Amino acid sequence: MAVYTHVPDGALNAFLSSYGLPAATMFKGIAEGVENSNYLVETAGERFILTLYERRVDPGDLPYFLGLMDFVADAGLPAARPLTGRDGERLRTLCGRPAALITFVSGVSPEAPSPAQARAAGAALARLHRAAEPFEGRRANALGPDGWQALFAQIAPRLDEVAPGFRSEVGHHLERALAPLPGLPAGTIHADLFPDNVLFEGDRVTGLIDFYFACTDRLAYDLAIALNAWTKEPEDGEAPDPAGPRAFLAGYESIRPLAGAERDALPQLLTGAALRFLLTRAHDWLHRVPGACVSVKDPLPYLRLLRHHERSPDDFLEA
Amino acid sequence: MAVYTHVPDGALNAFLSSYGLPAATMFKGIAEGVENSNYLVETAGERFILTLYERRVDPGDLPYFLGLMDFVADAGLPAARPLTGRDGERLRTLCGRPAALITFVSGVSPEAPSPAQARAAGAALARLHRAAEPFEGRRANALGPDGWQALFAQIAPRLDEVAPGFRSEVGHHLERALAPLPGLPAGTIHADLFPDNVLFEGDRVTGLIDFYFACTDRLAYDLAIALNAWTKEPEDGEAPDPAGPRAFLAGYESIRPLAGAERDALPQLLTGAALRFLLTRAHDWLHRVPGACVSVKDPLPYLRLLRHHERSPDDFLEA
Repeated sequence: MAVYTHVPDGALNAFLSSYGLPAATMFKGIAEGVENSNYLVETAGERFILTLYERRVDPGDLPYFLGLMDFVADAGLPAARPLTGRDGERLRTLCGRPAALITFVSGVSPEAPSPAQARAAGAALARLHRAAEPFEGRRANALGPDGWQALFAQIAPRLDEVAPGFRSEVGHHLERALAPLPGLPAGTIHADLFPDNVLFEGDRVTGLIDFYFACTDRLAYDLAIALNAWTKEPEDGEAPDPAGPRAFLAGYESIRPLAGAERDALPQLLTGAALRFLLTRAHDWLHRVPGACVSVKDPLPYLRLLRHHERSPDDFLEA
Repeated sequence: MAVYTHVPDGALNAFLSSYGLPAATMFKGIAEGVENSNYLVETAGERFILTLYERRVDPGDLPYFLGLMDFVADAGLPAARPLTGRDGERLRTLCGRPAALITFVSGVSPEAPSPAQARAAGAALARLHRAAEPFEGRRANALGPDGWQALFAQIAPRLDEVAPGFRSEVGHHLERALAPLPGLPAGTIHADLFPDNVLFEGDRVTGLIDFYFACTDRLAYDLAIALNAWTKEPEDGEAPDPAGPRAFLAGYESIRPLAGAERDALPQLLTGAALRFLLTRAHDWLHRVPGACVSVKDPLPYLRLLRHHERSPDDFLEA
């Protein structure tokens, strides 16, 4: 939630001219994205998001991300599209950073999505999976099962600093998540479809945003990430509310019904998906800098989700 | 440059309804303002700035600031206007903070204003001084001569931490700034008209923003603050470029010619205005928190301005 790179108006207008666009009539740094700098720009009566890619994104991955965004926008999905400059390039350099100019998508992310919104978001994720089938880009999932093990090994010595007994309990859920699974349909996944990455007007999805974790993996794993994300993070002693995940799943299956093997794998994928966010949150929590700008998310709600999935593996999946 | 208070979409939409406005179709936290939270909101095809007032602003001053903004917008100046809700109130509470919804003003702040932009900004400040003459609100300037002395007394024991000899040199300029002056025309002043508080499209001023230092003081002192602000902050060993201040002054006088006593007082007011920013910057620098979000401005360029004004008191004022 910050603007890391300050862009002077002169540099901005030179950048816009490489797209054949006139000088900006609005230019506001926006508090969005985890570790990129984002500006809202208006020029020639149209709005755009200017993104400068900072540390967290590997510049080598940017052609994949921008190519995917372009592909799914072409397919008619409500996704932001990177503009192509007069030189034919989507990616250029601004203030020493890789930068792209992306069409603006209206709508507001819901803080507490309704079941109707969850259902619409589920259908949008299924449409994304369908639309991206012909997309030829490939990117390995650095935060898949190998990644979980590597991250666990790295932070295990300090995991009990998060909470007493955390290390052994997380280790137990890691074993459960790593049990063998049959091959499942794979393709391009968003991998981070939390409610703050879906824009709505009322119950209608107007935009899917933030494709910077997208990769090639099992489609049902993407669904599992989203099912965990579309319930309110449970407080201590609280059971998660299954209404959001169930509505999300129903919306998803209205567009892309799950294969039997996918449905059977979902309880374990829900565990794996919860573990993935628990591990990165625990990592960031252990490496937090007191007083720094970036807010660190609490890993504990994801431990509560892991316990819930072990106790009630089908709770999020019932009709 | 941050968003301190997170506003959920439900609270936002309830807030908008108190103005008779429908749900937001855009809602972006923007990196603007020193210590307030600002959001760009679109609803019913119109754009607004939602401001939540945080620590730095005294809530008791808000009716003055909002009343002034309304008054100068009424007078036809390009200034943002706070909306009045269905209950007749401009100021209400959102997420536990005082909050106002303000019309959006297009335009971009120049990083390195041209003389033509400086001239236009000078004319806009003179129009503001003229337009605010009938405004009945009054607010004492907490950062006037008494404030300088109090702030100097508070931080003097540590001033040499900023630079060797800083305390005695600042004390010398404080004495110069406090020399008796004749009575000068007073009224409502902006008190912070830096280029980042003026929006432009090309050379045309489209907006004056950030009235949260406005107060009742000598008009020529407001002009002096702006003259110092419309030159690039000088580096070590560098003389400030007088082109911006001279163009600003010419623009100002094209609308409101200075009285002889004001013109004569300007060299001393330039010293006082430079001192005011030097002292608050030095205070913030001495109380900075390493790694914190807020960027701390360098006090040293204002020492260079003070030296310049002592050496060449009329340099910014020549035709």
